[in-house]
Amino acid sequence: METSKLFEKYDLIPAVIQDYKNGEVLMLGFMNEESLKLTMETKRTWFYSRSRQKLWNKGETSGHFQNVKNIYYNCEENSLLIKAEQIGPACHTGNRSCFYREL
Amino acid sequence: METSKLFEKYDLIPAVIQDYKNGEVLMLGFMNEESLKLTMETKRTWFYSRSRQKLWNKGETSGHFQNVKNIYYNCEENSLLIKAEQIGPACHTGNRSCFYREL
Repeated sequence: METSKLFEKYDLIPAVIQDYKNGEVLMLGFMNEESLKLTMETKRTWFYSRSRQKLWNKGETSGHFQNVKNIYYNCEENSLLIKAEQIGPACHTGNRSCFYREL
Repeated sequence: METSKLFEKYDLIPAVIQDYKNGEVLMLGFMNEESLKLTMETKRTWFYSRSRQKLWNKGETSGHFQNVKNIYYNCEENSLLIKAEQIGPACHTGNRSCFYREL
């Protein structure tokens, strides 16, 4: 599978980050082709920030890195599921997961 | 929390569907405000198809509905995590999850 194929239709695709041990969904970020390449090379997650319009390495300021274990792609080849070891909390609020509030 | 707040910045936001029992990530779809409203009202998932540009109710043709148990939103208020009971496979390929292939 050529990773470029994942970005044929959309420059940015959603990546779900899941705790590789307990299955908790920790966060969701968008990736472009470069951030996916960096994620695969460094074995740590990189995303593309739509608000700041730049790449960012999760944990670069907080130390709360995500060590990548497995990367899956969906049937339609336009989203990612990444199983990772989360160092510290995933959320900048200090919560383990960014999805800590129920609607 | 006003659900309209989730769509202030983007008309479409990603929704991760997770098996409410075993934590498996089943699929990811995009929702607009109307599909989220329908999801909450019917307790079954509705999405907005970017390719077909219309709402669709997961399971309407296959019978593989997703019965919604809990809906969470993330810290940045621009994505959703939905825990659901999946009837049959989630993926149109017949796989339980759409994320059945590893990169």
